[in-house]
Amino acid sequence: MDEQPEESRTGTRIEAVMAVIRSRIAARSLLTGARLPSVRLQARAMKVSVSTVVEAYERLVAEGIIRSQPGSGFYVSGPLAPFSLAEIEPKLDREVDPLWISRQSLEADDGVLKPGCGWLPASWMHEAGMRRALRALARAGNGELADYATPLGLPALRGVLARRMAASGIEAAPQQIMLTESGTQAIDLICRFLLEPGDAVIVDDPCYFNFHALLKAHRAKAVGVPYTPNGPDIEAFTEAVQAHAPRLYITNSAIHNPTGAVLSPVTAHRLLKLAERSNLVIVEDDIFADFELTPAPRLAAFDGLARVVHIGSFSKTLSASVRCGYIAARPEWIESLADLKIATSFGGGRLAAGILLAALTDGGYRKHLETVRARLAGAMETTVARLGAIGITPWIVPKAGMFLWCRLPDGIDAAAIARTCLKEGVVLAPGNAFSQSGTASGFLRFNVAQSTDARLFDVLARALAVS
Amino acid sequence: MDEQPEESRTGTRIEAVMAVIRSRIAARSLLTGARLPSVRLQARAMKVSVSTVVEAYERLVAEGIIRSQPGSGFYVSGPLAPFSLAEIEPKLDREVDPLWISRQSLEADDGVLKPGCGWLPASWMHEAGMRRALRALARAGNGELADYATPLGLPALRGVLARRMAASGIEAAPQQIMLTESGTQAIDLICRFLLEPGDAVIVDDPCYFNFHALLKAHRAKAVGVPYTPNGPDIEAFTEAVQAHAPRLYITNSAIHNPTGAVLSPVTAHRLLKLAERSNLVIVEDDIFADFELTPAPRLAAFDGLARVVHIGSFSKTLSASVRCGYIAARPEWIESLADLKIATSFGGGRLAAGILLAALTDGGYRKHLETVRARLAGAMETTVARLGAIGITPWIVPKAGMFLWCRLPDGIDAAAIARTCLKEGVVLAPGNAFSQSGTASGFLRFNVAQSTDARLFDVLARALAVS
Repeated sequence: MDEQPEESRTGTRIEAVMAVIRSRIAARSLLTGARLPSVRLQARAMKVSVSTVVEAYERLVAEGIIRSQPGSGFYVSGPLAPFSLAEIEPKLDREVDPLWISRQSLEADDGVLKPGCGWLPASWMHEAGMRRALRALARAGNGELADYATPLGLPALRGVLARRMAASGIEAAPQQIMLTESGTQAIDLICRFLLEPGDAVIVDDPCYFNFHALLKAHRAKAVGVPYTPNGPDIEAFTEAVQAHAPRLYITNSAIHNPTGAVLSPVTAHRLLKLAERSNLVIVEDDIFADFELTPAPRLAAFDGLARVVHIGSFSKTLSASVRCGYIAARPEWIESLADLKIATSFGGGRLAAGILLAALTDGGYRKHLETVRARLAGAMETTVARLGAIGITPWIVPKAGMFLWCRLPDGIDAAAIARTCLKEGVVLAPGNAFSQSGTASGFLRFNVAQSTDARLFDVLARALAVS
Repeated sequence: MDEQPEESRTGTRIEAVMAVIRSRIAARSLLTGARLPSVRLQARAMKVSVSTVVEAYERLVAEGIIRSQPGSGFYVSGPLAPFSLAEIEPKLDREVDPLWISRQSLEADDGVLKPGCGWLPASWMHEAGMRRALRALARAGNGELADYATPLGLPALRGVLARRMAASGIEAAPQQIMLTESGTQAIDLICRFLLEPGDAVIVDDPCYFNFHALLKAHRAKAVGVPYTPNGPDIEAFTEAVQAHAPRLYITNSAIHNPTGAVLSPVTAHRLLKLAERSNLVIVEDDIFADFELTPAPRLAAFDGLARVVHIGSFSKTLSASVRCGYIAARPEWIESLADLKIATSFGGGRLAAGILLAALTDGGYRKHLETVRARLAGAMETTVARLGAIGITPWIVPKAGMFLWCRLPDGIDAAAIARTCLKEGVVLAPGNAFSQSGTASGFLRFNVAQSTDARLFDVLARALAVS
């Protein structure tokens, strides 16, 4: 056999592999920092030999287009290949990008209306309690003013949290509770602890949009399961578990964000059975607990913190300015989570926990909550009526909380409405920001506490009229 | 050819591959959650065919010993395969485990002496300033008490930080500065932004031990480069860059932890040239800045924040109880870092930044620093003398700061001394906790501000005598 043609055929095959990789990079289906298909997979996909792919990859390394990570694989290289959340998937419309909504809401100045934001106006928060707490801390022992916290955080606050949880039927000893710097950091630490890059995680569809951003930061794959007025659709959940073998399910207990729905006991029970069969861990985010009028079931209460991790904070009901959240979980998990917390944020300070403890145990907090719940109920009623008058209808009318998940008139696109309203100083939260499947383009989430200004409904009505 | 023997030979080979993987798991050289060698690598290593390894892996999956992650590879499964820092590498002696020292220091009660801890006693911190700041915040606007921070954090504080940096020759506009919840979170966000799992990162040997824990949490590979009294050993640094193609170098500017050494201008210049040639990003951790008597060179000042990221906090000089750090970096990096901060901790609150701003701009902070520097200088002199009397000698006598890196008498093991002293209520910081290469077993790091109690030297002398 003549050797020349054989070599040349091989050369052509090597070039074909190189061309395929180059074009995938150019088309951004392989982004900076992404791992290339393994040599074996690529060889099988292109029906060429493993050595052809090895040679092609090695030439691309020599060209500086990809880099080899010994023992791990080949990665698309870049100027510095920094990790950017925005680059991970094809750029969304900025209007339905979870980070865009967060940033708009966080950045908006005082003249802007923010019905799309996820928190109460400052004037609805526990101002008097915060002032009293700060004055109390100004007189506290010097250790509280100067020192790092212990690894799990202020024991007295963990005791208060244990008693609060016991009142919801969740048995958690103080040593099963760790303070964090926020509810978001609590979920972040759990993801660090339980997820590998590429793992699948079930989220509700729709769900709190920052869960999408957080999971992207962990390079995890979010799998959406439709949410019903009683909790996740169990049939779809079962299918998702079978199809994706997820490690985690992240959800809100009590009042669901963005729908305001509440998990029914029957759905909770089915979920837990399913989780047990499939070795799934559930993160139950309970940050809206204090808005409830009648307590809904908590997964952590049924499960006894076996495979449910319970997290929370007081950012929604007391103050978002003082940062403190918590995790309740199996004791041996708390040990590892404390190690991770120290490694990545050195354990936190004593001050935030001290302020929170003072403000929570101050007799005024309960009274403050009663006032807020009553104001929310009033705002809910008014907002439903005002939105109804312009053809925007609630998916359900929630029993409590600040969120109202609303359907726009047929054929109207929420992202387009959001874009129009932003020009008039109104920050909305369009449905697809909450939807992994992108099937909520006809929805908006309203925060009824941020929807008390009549101007909002004029702006909305005009935007609906022109779209 | 008879088919039977061939099949049986294949069967034997499959079993051999399975046995090798099983024994590596049993020996904990493959830990729960670890990725198995790729099919191709394993085939090459064992001189068997790819299909043999595929079959062996598939049988191990069926046995539940490993799991397949489509498109990613095979992983050792476990009950839930949670990620534990302690499991990543063979368990160290708990006494030289970075997390152990952090936890001992954070947990130690008031009767315990902590010469090994990395912060000042509460009574040395800015108590009066903190009390004034808390009283000022108790009278602040309601937004400061109730609201989330903007994505980059309190503009007035970023302005103060920009002016402070300008005084060290670092030009950073306020929009190039982002507040974080701590200096540690600042480095953590940078690692999230720039590192892929498996990436190499250069650290000083010795270095701040929590860098090791942080890099483990990122599944990055720490590569130690010997530290000299003038900064890292440039020859060893050059070799490390060539051998490991690191993405990052993390170091302290000004006063180095644990040695108290200071980077010389010549070393700084060489480092930056090397970084430029090899596309290396440098994280300069400046948390000890305010202890300096005469300002040392800052890498960020030479480099103009091109490839140096400058971070800091006031946990060491003002209060560790109020959590607030910062990052100064290229403007386009700050954008992505802000997205990552929102995704993983929702941006922080306004309170900590407000307290910090009040305490920093209060005329008392400068006076407090003068007092602290003078006390440290006194404690340094006394501690050097007292240690010298029992045969413990400083590697160098630092010009400023709290750390003294000391050599024990020949043949004495610091971990053994630490173990003995812990029983007598003294928490030490043995050298190998700081050393990637494990070559500092004859060293201890002393915090001179935590070494003022004469009992410490009695306990140490007795421990030396029995070892």
